[in-house]
Amino acid sequence: MIFSLPVIAPLDRSLETALLDKIAHKTKPPGSLGRLESLALQIGLIQHSVSPQIERPVILVFAGDHGIAQAGVSPYPQAVTVQMVANFVAGGAAINAFCGIAGIALEVINAGVVADLHEGAVIDMPIARGTRNFALEPAMTRAQAEQALAAGAARVRHHAAQGSTVIGFGEMGIGNTSSAACLMSRLCHLPLAHCVGRGTGLDDAGLARKQAILEVALARHEDAGADTIATLACFGGFEIAMMAGAFLAAAQARMTILVDGFIASTALLVAVSLAPAVRDYCVFAHQSDEAGHRKLLDFLGAEPLLALGLRLGEGTGAALALPLLRAATAFLNEMASFGEAGVSDRAD
Amino acid sequence: MIFSLPVIAPLDRSLETALLDKIAHKTKPPGSLGRLESLALQIGLIQHSVSPQIERPVILVFAGDHGIAQAGVSPYPQAVTVQMVANFVAGGAAINAFCGIAGIALEVINAGVVADLHEGAVIDMPIARGTRNFALEPAMTRAQAEQALAAGAARVRHHAAQGSTVIGFGEMGIGNTSSAACLMSRLCHLPLAHCVGRGTGLDDAGLARKQAILEVALARHEDAGADTIATLACFGGFEIAMMAGAFLAAAQARMTILVDGFIASTALLVAVSLAPAVRDYCVFAHQSDEAGHRKLLDFLGAEPLLALGLRLGEGTGAALALPLLRAATAFLNEMASFGEAGVSDRAD
Repeated sequence: MIFSLPVIAPLDRSLETALLDKIAHKTKPPGSLGRLESLALQIGLIQHSVSPQIERPVILVFAGDHGIAQAGVSPYPQAVTVQMVANFVAGGAAINAFCGIAGIALEVINAGVVADLHEGAVIDMPIARGTRNFALEPAMTRAQAEQALAAGAARVRHHAAQGSTVIGFGEMGIGNTSSAACLMSRLCHLPLAHCVGRGTGLDDAGLARKQAILEVALARHEDAGADTIATLACFGGFEIAMMAGAFLAAAQARMTILVDGFIASTALLVAVSLAPAVRDYCVFAHQSDEAGHRKLLDFLGAEPLLALGLRLGEGTGAALALPLLRAATAFLNEMASFGEAGVSDRAD
Repeated sequence: MIFSLPVIAPLDRSLETALLDKIAHKTKPPGSLGRLESLALQIGLIQHSVSPQIERPVILVFAGDHGIAQAGVSPYPQAVTVQMVANFVAGGAAINAFCGIAGIALEVINAGVVADLHEGAVIDMPIARGTRNFALEPAMTRAQAEQALAAGAARVRHHAAQGSTVIGFGEMGIGNTSSAACLMSRLCHLPLAHCVGRGTGLDDAGLARKQAILEVALARHEDAGADTIATLACFGGFEIAMMAGAFLAAAQARMTILVDGFIASTALLVAVSLAPAVRDYCVFAHQSDEAGHRKLLDFLGAEPLLALGLRLGEGTGAALALPLLRAATAFLNEMASFGEAGVSDRAD
């Protein structure tokens, strides 16, 4: 066993009354800041502080290639994964722009793309040169899955040690909505049709083809998946496995975790089925337009902050939601109370 | 006639093809940035530029008192309006915290509160010491309504001259959801019950009382409101009238306008009924929890960016949405194209 499951404490609620009291005395009608109030409470509980801080926010983007891409499940060639890693490093992708304006540190991790990388700025820890095609055989070995979980966790511990209190995860990997759809179908016990979507933009024929390929793959591996890690190994991918490990380590480190879209939520699903307490540390950033995401959010009991019709991945939704976390802590820390401001409270 | 209606050009769409082309070549699947793509297009059209910029964003908060508050339509005493103006000046309100983290300039304007203000940081241009109680008589004279429209417009021209390309409006005024509900009912031709809500937090009995008071007031002024300005004068308030003038001037100056919640949307409703082209320059920031707002948004054909259960006013929703405008212009200006980044476009 390469990977030892982090011990994650359930959320410590001992400051709940103090936090609710602090929120209640702010110069505003009770409840009038809506979701920001529950967000301030959650971040305060996670940090075990009535004055929680957003320190050194960081997004880790995990890149990995998928053997299933060779089966024709994406309108983009597999080479795009590596090309986009270079684009991240050059600062030309959407996640670069969004991290830049929001003051978020960005780290790109090679979890296992098909080519050797010569990009100095990439954290290079590939498990292999892409997963195997799970239409034919398991995407990876159990040892590889555990290695990826451990590697993702290690990367998060590095950032916790640097003082980050908020972390988000993104991904890049042509074919990874296929992996995610199969993982979701298996781990949520839902029909594949509820889990599969257009990914980067399949047309109706492409979607039908993708669904047919994945139905066959699921049937082939009907007896696989004795446990969560076996299921993860069967359907991949390396970037999803690393993200799952990253979720576990971030919760253990009591960081506030920004959950991005469909792929990130699937990685969280893996993490939650290994250690349910992870869920308490998560803020759901946005609802993706990818078909399965709303059902996955329902399964996770999540109501995301944003619904902007995004379906890009890369952690873009997480980056866009970060200012709302800053707003939640800013009102908690900076607003005056009725008493401090000399403002009359309700007459009734 | 004190107020001369600004001439507002319909949105110039001549750069639409160039903007759509620029967006289409960015390194992402087509449409995958959802609402941010239409936002980038709109801001580009407003600024008549394929590289629009968010410069010197500013929020103007208009404060005014309402005679109708004396009828018992709010759980808070009228004195809170002036107290909150002092809180804005001292930096203790939610809007201060949100503008601070988002890098938004904030200006507080006395449109007509009940007390003389001795706050140096307030732009002091009161129309009168609060409106009259429209349960008994019109809230203001037509001359006062026009004076307020002109004053709001003048304040916006000042900021346009300072180089602001994005502006939002907020308000403070105990009782102003009553003014807004009556304006909405009259200008949208909707039953009052569709327009009235709990405001700062009325309970069921308080809500029933508010609705009964406003039904009587609407009936009393059945023949008033020969035109939009007469309707505005009848139901007030000064801060709503100034905001309406501000919307008109901001559209004339081709600024991108962030529309806050229920009160701000009602001021926009006044502006749109005076000059429908204003609507093209508006970005709807958020959907308020105040009952009438969703119907008002439907009337205006608007789908707001955020839905966070806010019902505070002050421009808080506008401030929270600003980072999304920054994200829209950042992806348009900073992301690489497929050609620039050497990324393969779709295979199909």
